[in-house]
Order: sequence, then structure tokens, then C-alpha cells
Amino acid sequence: MVDGVILNGPITDSKAGEKFVEEACKIIMEEIIQKADDVTEKVCEWRAPETLKKLLDLEMRDTGESHQKLLQLCQDVIQYSVKTNHPRFFNQLYAGIDYYSLVARFITEALNPSVYTYEVSPVFLLVEEAVIKKMIEFIGWEEGDGIFNPGGSVSNMYAMNLARYKFCPEIKEKGLSGLPRLVLFTSEECHYSMKKAASFLGIGTENVYFVKTDERGKMIPEELEKQVQRARKEGSAPFLVCATAGTTVLGAFDPLDKIADICEKYDLWLHVDASWGGSALISRKHCRLLHGIQRADSVAWNPHKMLLAGIQCCALLVKDNSGLLKKCYSAKAAYLFQQDKFYDVSYDTGDKSIQCSRRPDAFKFWLMWKALGTTGLEERVNRALALARYLVEEIKKREGFQLLLEVAPVVKERMMKKGSMMLGYQPNQGKVNFFRQVVISPQVSREDMDFLLDEIELLAKDL
Amino acid sequence: MVDGVILNGPITDSKAGEKFVEEACKIIMEEIIQKADDVTEKVCEWRAPETLKKLLDLEMRDTGESHQKLLQLCQDVIQYSVKTNHPRFFNQLYAGIDYYSLVARFITEALNPSVYTYEVSPVFLLVEEAVIKKMIEFIGWEEGDGIFNPGGSVSNMYAMNLARYKFCPEIKEKGLSGLPRLVLFTSEECHYSMKKAASFLGIGTENVYFVKTDERGKMIPEELEKQVQRARKEGSAPFLVCATAGTTVLGAFDPLDKIADICEKYDLWLHVDASWGGSALISRKHCRLLHGIQRADSVAWNPHKMLLAGIQCCALLVKDNSGLLKKCYSAKAAYLFQQDKFYDVSYDTGDKSIQCSRRPDAFKFWLMWKALGTTGLEERVNRALALARYLVEEIKKREGFQLLLEVAPVVKERMMKKGSMMLGYQPNQGKVNFFRQVVISPQVSREDMDFLLDEIELLAKDL
Repeated sequence: MVDGVILNGPITDSKAGEKFVEEACKIIMEEIIQKADDVTEKVCEWRAPETLKKLLDLEMRDTGESHQKLLQLCQDVIQYSVKTNHPRFFNQLYAGIDYYSLVARFITEALNPSVYTYEVSPVFLLVEEAVIKKMIEFIGWEEGDGIFNPGGSVSNMYAMNLARYKFCPEIKEKGLSGLPRLVLFTSEECHYSMKKAASFLGIGTENVYFVKTDERGKMIPEELEKQVQRARKEGSAPFLVCATAGTTVLGAFDPLDKIADICEKYDLWLHVDASWGGSALISRKHCRLLHGIQRADSVAWNPHKMLLAGIQCCALLVKDNSGLLKKCYSAKAAYLFQQDKFYDVSYDTGDKSIQCSRRPDAFKFWLMWKALGTTGLEERVNRALALARYLVEEIKKREGFQLLLEVAPVVKERMMKKGSMMLGYQPNQGKVNFFRQVVISPQVSREDMDFLLDEIELLAKDL
Repeated sequence: MVDGVILNGPITDSKAGEKFVEEACKIIMEEIIQKADDVTEKVCEWRAPETLKKLLDLEMRDTGESHQKLLQLCQDVIQYSVKTNHPRFFNQLYAGIDYYSLVARFITEALNPSVYTYEVSPVFLLVEEAVIKKMIEFIGWEEGDGIFNPGGSVSNMYAMNLARYKFCPEIKEKGLSGLPRLVLFTSEECHYSMKKAASFLGIGTENVYFVKTDERGKMIPEELEKQVQRARKEGSAPFLVCATAGTTVLGAFDPLDKIADICEKYDLWLHVDASWGGSALISRKHCRLLHGIQRADSVAWNPHKMLLAGIQCCALLVKDNSGLLKKCYSAKAAYLFQQDKFYDVSYDTGDKSIQCSRRPDAFKFWLMWKALGTTGLEERVNRALALARYLVEEIKKREGFQLLLEVAPVVKERMMKKGSMMLGYQPNQGKVNFFRQVVISPQVSREDMDFLLDEIELLAKDL
């Protein structure tokens, strides 16, 4: 006994704990996993915030709740959560369920690893290495480097900082103070993380020069060149072009080859935000959408989107293999990255990261890839794109779908309250709101496309 | 059929998928969860990188593997992974297993949510709000704001950027170019993420001024004031002090009250990196270690460390409640944060984040808190600190333990290869390597402390 605390023996009741896990797993299996392919279930059980607060017992108290009560809480959490696994969840750039990545995620949650040193995460570091190598092959680089990190936005930040380091390594120590304005270029249809990154990295959002796009949302290379020339004339320092392969709203692929020409001409780092579109590289039929990507210096690619690897699964990939990533990011913490270890410390990759603890996100992609093979992944991409094409043809056949644009918020409210499907809407370049239909999951079929159109008609018929 | 792809019906075999999940869950239960409290199991099954590569079948191929083969792979992954749940895993600032947070993590993996808008994550946004409110209470603020994010390092970055925004909001748009050098202060025992953050944010590592610590590793307030005065004389712009509550190597708590006095005097933002030590706030006995924290402007606190919430579970908490966090971080993406939604969009908190997709990390802490109650969390903290104190007393009684310092890397190699326990070592301020014993998990007992000392003696007896 020390400080009034009894120290002999553990204070956890592992038998009761294990039983609780078993019972909860049964609920997870029945209420989430087995219902994932059931279109008769609701996508969401909509409740307004104040109502939901009353339904859930959110308060944390001094004493704990019984297992019975906790299991009921778990049921409630599941009931009122959106079923992103549902075949008719089309609301975001992720959807559906992959059983293999799910198993991988259960394993890592149970093992609770952090991926920074080989001694703590031997398997997950080797898996990450293997996955990054394979992704680099699909990009078409002969060699490269990379790191999994928490999201496409963070990947874009990594790339922006890396391009800056390449442009002027001294910034790492000296900072930006006293330097000329660094300027980067991206299309006006780019993801909003570009602005967030420029602000976070001290570059400033005004130093993101937005390049005009064509009517399909693709960056116009001639406009890019004009902007670069403008920046040079102003005396600022252009250092980076961020092209997009699969824009967030329109799904447009910037013409990478032409953009790469301009980057070469003006000696600019080319980063491709392929967070959404990168997975098309897996498809021999559709990889041409990213033609020229092998000329990029860095690529962000999120297998948690089109490939269903589970949130989050995002890699930043870098063409450089001379250690640029590590030089740019390392802080050489002596307590973690000891150099007198008994094994090859080049496997301690944590110092490439802006994080300290880091999740083994490559593993879920790896297990899924092992299970489906490249062919299975390719099938997912091909089918998603074929379904999208089917939908376009069907929309053309239906009268009245143009008009619907103006009533998107009302149709959205009705579908949420009914829980029949979830589909996002947004305005685009001064045009009114339109629905963005995202097709990802292999559970989705032609029937769901037809349902989507029928349901929008039904929900909007009195408008 | 479109583009040669058959579109009718789903292409996933959900029955086979569900069966695979069930079989894998059985393995997870038997090989990870049920073995978590078994000290006769190895902490790690050490293999050198090249050997492990041969043992694991890492290659991803064109065709998928059978379920049988995949289950064997899962077994292998588990076998060669470090058991961070093991009572004798003392290697990092996290350890042990909490059955409730584990269940919460299984639920969120199965639901696969992303926390940015209420429509997609109604439950998890409300839970995050409730948890942040409770954490703010324990800090002692009357109100505040906050966001869960992927790690203490990232939390520190958030705080640094927020302090900078408060200091000069224009930096968000204009960047740092042309501005005087911004300077921040932290102790020489701070976490290495301070340097990473300064570099990433464009401030520069040379503009982190390190303040001397006393022999226990605590920042010396008089030295801090000297550094602030020095920076002012140089004409640079001091804007931030990062104090540490629980340093990484020595576990020291900076004297927050005295540091807050200096911050007030010089009008500096006070951030407290309580990633490790913040959980002591839960203990009425030990919260005095963080005396003065209520005067901080921001706090980083990781419940995944001392409280076992699972990697990652990290909050950045901010005293300001006037919307500073959102103003600093927002990019107002029209496709995600539509202002014409049918519900109160103040619940769409995603624009406070540097991420787009974000995991519901507050939920695992919440379910654990519901299960154990504040009293149960407090018991964990009190016991961990009592065990640490017991160990100190026992070390004093044993001869030869001072001498062991010089042989730490050899003892470490032997314990890894034996797999009997895992314990980290590091040099400190010119002194030779020493072992850092971290006590966290409620599975750990007096017996484990005794084992630790016996085992070090045994492993080192011929040295």
C-alpha cells in the first residue's frame, strides 16, 4: 500500500471486460455489419440536435454505468448514427463496407500500436513499406518514398512543406520571415485544404493563385502559365503547382502532362492531389485519366475513398528517394530515435512524420489488397465508373431533372427525414445548388441508380 | 451492361464477408484480448527486419488470397506484433487495454464515420461537444472550445497557429513574409513536436527559444523571463510560451502559475502541452501538479496515454469562446458547409479542423468515461502514480542500479529478444542512457514492479 492505494494485483476485471467485448461485438455484427447490404434499412434516423441530445444520455458522471446500460447506449449510438455502409449513402467521397479492411481495423484497434519505430511496430512498418512501394509502382515512378497520414488535407500540407523545403531548405530553421512571398498555384476547383495548408504553413491564403478551369472543371494550362509569369513579374517566388486528379465537386482530372511541362519550364514542384482520383490508377481502363502523373514530384492518394479502405487511409508519396522527406521533417528526438539500437534504425520511419503517435493505416489497405488482389480492386473502380456513366445516360432520358437544381436543399431535407438515401448538394461557380452523386461501393448496383432518380422525382414532385 | 461491366446487383458476397469477420473476431478475441492480462505470454516475438519480411507474405498480387490464407496472415500479424496491451509493456507513454474504449473503437470502425457535419455524424459531434465541455471543466475554465485531432504533436501545432493568429490575424491571408521574426518559448525538456511545429508552420526552429530547466526537468521561470527580454531586445516578436505538464523523458511539470504571471506581464499566449500529464487533472490528489493550468489560453491533453483511451485520442482545448478557433481555421468550403441547410449549422464543426475527414476520437473516451465514471478514471491515475512511487523506493534499496545506466542498450536488446518486457531508454542532457519506466495500465501491479527490477538485474548480471 502506497499513498492509500493497494498495489497488489491488477485492478481490472478482465473476465467481465472480455464478456462485455463479446456482447458488444454481437451487437456490432447484427446492427451494423449484417445490415450493411440491406436497402430496406434507413440510411439515417434523423433527429435534430436538441432532440438527439435528449435521446442520448451524454452526461459523464462520477460513477460508471452497468454493462446492461452501456450495451443499450451502444445500440442507441448505432441507431442514430448515419449508416455510411448503406448502399444508398452517396453523400461523401467514401461509402460502403469492405470486410477485409474492417478486420484489419479491428486487429489494429485491439493491438493498439503506434507506428514510429521498428521495435514497437515491426509488422506495420514493413507493411507500410510494401504498400508504399506498390503505390509508387502504380504512379509509374522507378523509386520513391512516402508516409501514411491522417487525411488528404494533411497529405497536401506535407507536400506543400516539402516543396518549400526543396525550394529553400533554410526555411526549416530560419522560417519565412524576411523572405520574398512564396506563391503556389492550383485550380479554382481544387480542394479547400489548399487554402488551409497555405494558412497553416505561414504562406498565407492570398499567396495561393487560383488558375481558371474549363467548363468541365479542369485546370487550363495556358492560364497556369500566365499566373506563373504574373507572379514572377511581381517579384514573388513561385515554388509549387498543385494539380488535382479528381476534383471534389465535379470529379475533374487536371491535364497533368501539360501542367508538368510548365512545371519543368519554370522549375516548380508538381504536387498532384489525387486523394479522390488516385484509385483510378488501379484500373487499366481508366488510368489514362491520370496520364502524366509519373512526372509529379509528389502525390496524395486516399485509398479510403474509392477503394473502401476505411477512414482514414491516406498516403503522401514522393518521387525523391534521396531522403528529402526525412531531412525536411526530422527533429531527431533522442528518446525515441536512439542511434545506438541493436537493429537497422533506417526502419524507424517515425521521424518522417509531423506526428509522434501514428496509426497503422497502411495495414487495412494491405489486407484488403491481399484479399481482393489487384484485379478485385480494379473491378471496383471499373464498376463505379460504369455506374456513373449509366446514371448520366438515365438522367438525360428523364424530363425535369435540370429544373430540380433549384430545389436541392428541400429535396435533401426530405430524404434525410425519410432516411431513404443520402446525397450531397452544392453550388458551383455561381450556379445554383446541384446534387453530386458519388458512386463508390461494390454493393451499389443499377437498381440503386434507378432508385436514386425515382426517389428524387418522388421527393420533389410537388415543388 | 455499360463499358463491359454488368451493373445489376451488388458484386460483394456479403455472407462470405460476414463469416470472415466472425472468424477473424474469434482470433482477435483469443489471441489479443484474452491474452492481454497474461504475463506468461511474451511482450514481443522479436525478429530482425529481414527475417520478418521472409516470415510474412507481404507481396500484393493480382489475384486475392483465400479466407483460410488470410486468417493465417492475421494470426502471423498478431504473433509478430508487439503486445502493447501486455502488463509488462512499459516502452511508451501508452499501454494496457481498456475494454470499453476498445468496444467504442470497434463500433466506429464498423460505422466508418467522418466527423465534420452534423448530417453525417450527428451522434459523434454531440459526443465530442460533451467530452470537450467536461475536459474544460477539469481544466478549470468557465467556458471554451476545442477539437479532437490526430495526436499531441498536431495539437501543439494547432495551438501554435492559433496563438499566431491571435497575435496577428492577417498572417492567415498574408503569410509571414515581410514580418519580423516571430519567437516562441518552451523548455529544453519539451516534446520534439515543438520544433516540428515551428518548422512546419514556417516559423523556423531557430525561433524556438529553449528555456533552461532545473534538475527535475522543470522550466525555470526566471530563465523564461530573461529569454523574453532577450527576444524583445533583438527586435523579434515574442508571441507564445509552451509550457509542459508532464515532460516526455522525466515526467516533469512546469510551474504553470509562475509562467502564467510572465505571460500576462508580456502579453504572451500560454499553451500547456499536457499531452502526458493532463490526465492527472482527473485526480483530486494529483491535480495540484497542474496548478495554474486554468490560466492557460490553450491545452493539449491526450486521454490515449495515461487513461488508455486508445491511439489516438487527443484534444486541443482553447479558453476562448468567441469563435477564435473557427475564425483561425475556417476555409468555408461551399460543398461541405452549406449555409442553407435545414438544421442549425453551428453543429457543423469540421471547419475548425485542419483535416477534412476526421475520426470520432472523442467517442472512445466518452464510452470509457461512462463505463468507469470519473471515480474509475481517478483510480487509474492514483494507482499509476503510487506504483511509480513504490518503484522509486525499491530502486533505492537495490545496489547496482545506478551503474546499470551505462549498459541500457545491451539490457534492452536482451529483453527484446527474450520478449519478457519492453522498457525504453534514452540519454538526458549529456548523461548516459537510462531506463524510463512508464506506469499506466490498471493491469499493472506491485508484482510487475518487482519483476521489472529482478529482470533488469538478471539481464545485466554479466555486464
